[in-house]
Amino acid sequence: MRKIINDPVHGFITIDDELIYAIISHPYYQRLRHIKQMALAYLVYPGAVHTRLHHSLGAYHLMGKALEELRQKGAEITREESQGAQIAILLHDIGHGPFSHALEHTLANIQHEEISLLIMQKLNEEFQGKLAIAIDIYTNQYPKKFLHQLVSSQLDVDRLDYLARDSFFTGVSEGVVGYERIIKMLTVHQEELLVEEKGIHSIEKFLIARRFMYWQVYLHKTVLSSELLLVNILKRAKALIHQGKNLMASPSLYFFLSKQLNLDDFISNPVCLSHFLNTNDSDVECAIRSWMQHEDSILSDLCTRLTNRKLLKIEFLQTDDQSKIKSIREKIQQQFSLDEQSISYYFTESTTSNKTYNESVDQIKNFI
Amino acid sequence: MRKIINDPVHGFITIDDELIYAIISHPYYQRLRHIKQMALAYLVYPGAVHTRLHHSLGAYHLMGKALEELRQKGAEITREESQGAQIAILLHDIGHGPFSHALEHTLANIQHEEISLLIMQKLNEEFQGKLAIAIDIYTNQYPKKFLHQLVSSQLDVDRLDYLARDSFFTGVSEGVVGYERIIKMLTVHQEELLVEEKGIHSIEKFLIARRFMYWQVYLHKTVLSSELLLVNILKRAKALIHQGKNLMASPSLYFFLSKQLNLDDFISNPVCLSHFLNTNDSDVECAIRSWMQHEDSILSDLCTRLTNRKLLKIEFLQTDDQSKIKSIREKIQQQFSLDEQSISYYFTESTTSNKTYNESVDQIKNFI
Amino acid sequence: MRKIINDPVHGFITIDDELIYAIISHPYYQRLRHIKQMALAYLVYPGAVHTRLHHSLGAYHLMGKALEELRQKGAEITREESQGAQIAILLHDIGHGPFSHALEHTLANIQHEEISLLIMQKLNEEFQGKLAIAIDIYTNQYPKKFLHQLVSSQLDVDRLDYLARDSFFTGVSEGVVGYERIIKMLTVHQEELLVEEKGIHSIEKFLIARRFMYWQVYLHKTVLSSELLLVNILKRAKALIHQGKNLMASPSLYFFLSKQLNLDDFISNPVCLSHFLNTNDSDVECAIRSWMQHEDSILSDLCTRLTNRKLLKIEFLQTDDQSKIKSIREKIQQQFSLDEQSISYYFTESTTSNKTYNESVDQIKNFI
Amino acid sequence: MRKIINDPVHGFITIDDELIYAIISHPYYQRLRHIKQMALAYLVYPGAVHTRLHHSLGAYHLMGKALEELRQKGAEITREESQGAQIAILLHDIGHGPFSHALEHTLANIQHEEISLLIMQKLNEEFQGKLAIAIDIYTNQYPKKFLHQLVSSQLDVDRLDYLARDSFFTGVSEGVVGYERIIKMLTVHQEELLVEEKGIHSIEKFLIARRFMYWQVYLHKTVLSSELLLVNILKRAKALIHQGKNLMASPSLYFFLSKQLNLDDFISNPVCLSHFLNTNDSDVECAIRSWMQHEDSILSDLCTRLTNRKLLKIEFLQTDDQSKIKSIREKIQQQFSLDEQSISYYFTESTTSNKTYNESVDQIKNFI
Repeated sequence: MRKIINDPVHGFITIDDELIYAIISHPYYQRLRHIKQMALAYLVYPGAVHTRLHHSLGAYHLMGKALEELRQKGAEITREESQGAQIAILLHDIGHGPFSHALEHTLANIQHEEISLLIMQKLNEEFQGKLAIAIDIYTNQYPKKFLHQLVSSQLDVDRLDYLARDSFFTGVSEGVVGYERIIKMLTVHQEELLVEEKGIHSIEKFLIARRFMYWQVYLHKTVLSSELLLVNILKRAKALIHQGKNLMASPSLYFFLSKQLNLDDFISNPVCLSHFLNTNDSDVECAIRSWMQHEDSILSDLCTRLTNRKLLKIEFLQTDDQSKIKSIREKIQQQFSLDEQSISYYFTESTTSNKTYNESVDQIKNFI
Repeated sequence: MRKIINDPVHGFITIDDELIYAIISHPYYQRLRHIKQMALAYLVYPGAVHTRLHHSLGAYHLMGKALEELRQKGAEITREESQGAQIAILLHDIGHGPFSHALEHTLANIQHEEISLLIMQKLNEEFQGKLAIAIDIYTNQYPKKFLHQLVSSQLDVDRLDYLARDSFFTGVSEGVVGYERIIKMLTVHQEELLVEEKGIHSIEKFLIARRFMYWQVYLHKTVLSSELLLVNILKRAKALIHQGKNLMASPSLYFFLSKQLNLDDFISNPVCLSHFLNTNDSDVECAIRSWMQHEDSILSDLCTRLTNRKLLKIEFLQTDDQSKIKSIREKIQQQFSLDEQSISYYFTESTTSNKTYNESVDQIKNFI
Repeated sequence: MRKIINDPVHGFITIDDELIYAIISHPYYQRLRHIKQMALAYLVYPGAVHTRLHHSLGAYHLMGKALEELRQKGAEITREESQGAQIAILLHDIGHGPFSHALEHTLANIQHEEISLLIMQKLNEEFQGKLAIAIDIYTNQYPKKFLHQLVSSQLDVDRLDYLARDSFFTGVSEGVVGYERIIKMLTVHQEELLVEEKGIHSIEKFLIARRFMYWQVYLHKTVLSSELLLVNILKRAKALIHQGKNLMASPSLYFFLSKQLNLDDFISNPVCLSHFLNTNDSDVECAIRSWMQHEDSILSDLCTRLTNRKLLKIEFLQTDDQSKIKSIREKIQQQFSLDEQSISYYFTESTTSNKTYNESVDQIKNFI
Repeated sequence: MRKIINDPVHGFITIDDELIYAIISHPYYQRLRHIKQMALAYLVYPGAVHTRLHHSLGAYHLMGKALEELRQKGAEITREESQGAQIAILLHDIGHGPFSHALEHTLANIQHEEISLLIMQKLNEEFQGKLAIAIDIYTNQYPKKFLHQLVSSQLDVDRLDYLARDSFFTGVSEGVVGYERIIKMLTVHQEELLVEEKGIHSIEKFLIARRFMYWQVYLHKTVLSSELLLVNILKRAKALIHQGKNLMASPSLYFFLSKQLNLDDFISNPVCLSHFLNTNDSDVECAIRSWMQHEDSILSDLCTRLTNRKLLKIEFLQTDDQSKIKSIREKIQQQFSLDEQSISYYFTESTTSNKTYNESVDQIKNFI
């Protein structure tokens, strides 16, 4: 079997493995067609409407290239391991819910990686244990560590794909990464992924491009502001449901709005995962549009603001001086005559950072 | 005022006109963010999720380039005319509903161009008549005919943008059009748009690229099959509502499903347009996902098929022999034991064609 | 061994075969660095200064991709055959002299393919018979015909590369070819190269793109005019040497200017090939610059015209009416008061054609 | 008048000024067609054969874009000033001799900028003083300083073009610069060129890209080694001529090989400039190929090495310890039994550096 998919970023993506094709065809995976990779960034970059499905297909493609490269350099990788690594990367983002990171802890208090693992385990049952190696690689329990490092490390194919892809769809050329060259520089030593010394400038360039994308795109003020607004909309919706108010929403979205769920709930109650697998961006989009007419003035105002792009102002401060933040909050509260309840939806503080390279986590190692 | 928008296709799009910025910021225009340019083509080309908003911004950009070119060649174009032509192209697709062409005559029996005009007129009122020239250009009542021809003809900036854009987002390089060169070849003679003689090969290439995109993309079997399925889903939903069955849908979508509307209804009853302006792709997407659980087995099966990409087979026949078509229909009906009602949702016949260049409509003229 | 070469057209070109690396490093092959792929086309397209070396490396890369594709579809191709096909395409243009086609029959009356074969045979001796399969493939004597068809047919990797490359370096986007897709559509049936049916539109597009490049680039009036001028310069130089006049030129160029050589001479006298392998574009360029000061007014005028881009006019006529052509010639002769000798350098007639697809030669066959 | 040139990097370059077209058509400018922008870098990057003419046309194009941008932001720039700035950038590299920087101080002891000025002055005479403003801008004597800064500063259109162009032709994607965005960020304050604050990350990215190109391309070991070899070849040729040996070379190249010229010579003796304007890359290429047969074994060996790409080894040392360098030299001398004369051609030491940003020279200033 052999399927070819056109990808404007990498050219052609080939699928020539029955199991992988079955996974891609599975409704769980197809759901990713309806989860935008970059959440609300399209409000600033109109081209940024590409999906998690597209990104994970791209990462799968790069995984194939990287494995081929390592094999040519003498690394031993069996057919099963290669299949496992490709499945692991294909499914690494399958646990993302509507609007990806933006709503990560709002719908339920869980990391998307944890949900990804739950879904992989569910698929593993369905496919009679054929995803076992993939799961071991994903959870870093597989002996050949470099396979996990290709899936998740400071220089994994996930990052290589999303930087290339986000740069392509936003049109921000500063994020262009020489991913082909970086893949050619990868090598394995004592089961660890290394970069050849001559690749050092490409890596430097990659880190800078990533930092640039953070400043220019991911942490763009309008993007951040719209995502904080989205979070506040859902917080308000949850509060109203908690107060017994009536709210239109799809059954699955309603399920999450009416409960405070965490990982334990997902593990103990299969209904959670089932509802999760039934939600995507459009549930939230439809709900927000209908809430524009809601009788609660806070909810309807927030929803109208997001839909019509009348966002709140955002300011970066280099402080964590709580008294200063409190005084800003009070000033705003007075100026717009907001009561205690309202201010919590119209004033949000949060911290963000943009580190090029975090030495303390896991280092990019090079071969000397 | 001066806004710059990143566009991966054309580079940077500049907006430096207050009125144009106000139109772009208007909720009617922002709605186009949620209408995919290529409807369901993303089922084959995962990158093809770009929007009508993005396309019309791109066409607006090319209009600016074309006007600048014509001015440099001596054509007289006032500031107002240039603004008018830019508004006309910006709004030429504003009358598209969910899934654009795919559902054009299903939701209501109207051409999208007719709705575009209604919306332009509504905006014209709101903006105190400032869209008058734009409307005259759009309806070809403006004396300088070439302005209308730039908006709508066999060689308009609409086509130049959508071919370039669809080619970019699908990754189908065969659709690449030398639009920059074509624009440089445009000229005006006796108020008509002409192409300089040396541009003839570029035009030929443009027509071929367009034909190629039709074969390869717009008329791709899987795309056509999925769009026919979508039409049948909505037909079934309408039939069920007509039978008094209960169906979940957003209020605006429900409005269209429960009525048979045409242009006269839109003109006489402002509620129609108001509901129309409140629908987009996500209304239909949410409805279809909820209908997967509907008690009507036809509706739920069709919806499940579309969501999980289990599409019906499609075959091109070079015939209009109705008895032959009837016999195929009967064969299918027997094979799958479908009753008279079911077969109409599982067997659809339709005609399509792919003409490179229709001489009888409006000719591309060149300057001798 | 493993070398990677950056190619702006295809990304990275990998060389991982000792013999192929030795051939690429050989002075005969390195000579192609100094032969421009597109002769004098840079006078119109300033970017078109890429070399025969670059093109043949690109074609070698595509050959590798095509062989891999065919292998995946079940074609049996041994390591030796694959090496042979890659060497054949690498050396297919090695018999080009200065300014490629432009001077093909001017320096010596031989086809470049004939010289390519002579050089391959010489290299075969030097490399102890290791190029035997490559030569059999090149001369179409190898049983698996599709290998030759990949090197030379209406749809060979030579054409795929030069269209993509020439389009890239000239910036003429109309020549963009979906070569990746075409390669994915290739298949082998009964040892013949075929195109899968679904590739038919890509082939059509490829033929059109090729025709476009002919009109727009290869047969561009200024390019043709400059190349005819170049031919006439060398004709004049030959005539002067024949008359015993003194002319500055490199020894190897002088050798060709002072003799009328054909294939038999090259076969019988090894000095011919040796001198040939010692000439490249710069011999001709240096000679022309020095001839600008030559005492012969025709030679110096022609050389000055080419150097300073004061070219002669060119006109396409759709006629082969010799009396009409003669009358034009006479008119020009009178108008500029040219004697019988001069007119032959200032008036040249020639025929050219641009067929999209020549059915009579070798057909592109598709698989039914 | 209006000429359009295809440029694969920037799209289309328009020339619509009679004077500028006359300058571009002038033999002095056309000479730049035969001077490769990146000297011998093509030995590593086969695509890097683009010319100084192509680069300066590209820089001229960006100058036009930058001036348009500044005008839109309110900077006053007259038609004459704009023409002057465009001519200044067009001619900024006209003083480059064969192989640009590689031979800058070898053929004659002069900076190319000094020769550029001499040629501009010569053209100014020929064009009746019409280049006066261009010369004032080039020499930074024009009151509106930002015009000079666009021609020459740490963020001039020269750098923007050559980074984009060299990156394009080498295929080294890490050098991709968002030049369109940078130009959009330029502004003028008190006649000085500034960058808007929101452009700071683009500038950072530009500086990093530039540094990357230095490491990866301009200071590539093979490139440096080949250029040092080229310098030694010419040094050896000069020495042989000084000893009275016979050497084949074009008259103009011979002129420079037989003399030690500096700026004063160029100013006092017009023959120098005249010979200079008659040399380009091919003079050197032809000479080197003929010198491969020269009786001097050092010269013939060096020339054969360069032609056949058998380069000398190069090593980066982080030292300026002269005794250490001396000991390396002695070791090499002994190992290869080289006499005192030979060692100076086979051992060369030189220093190089790669600073991202030199604060002490002229700062990139931003607007607060």
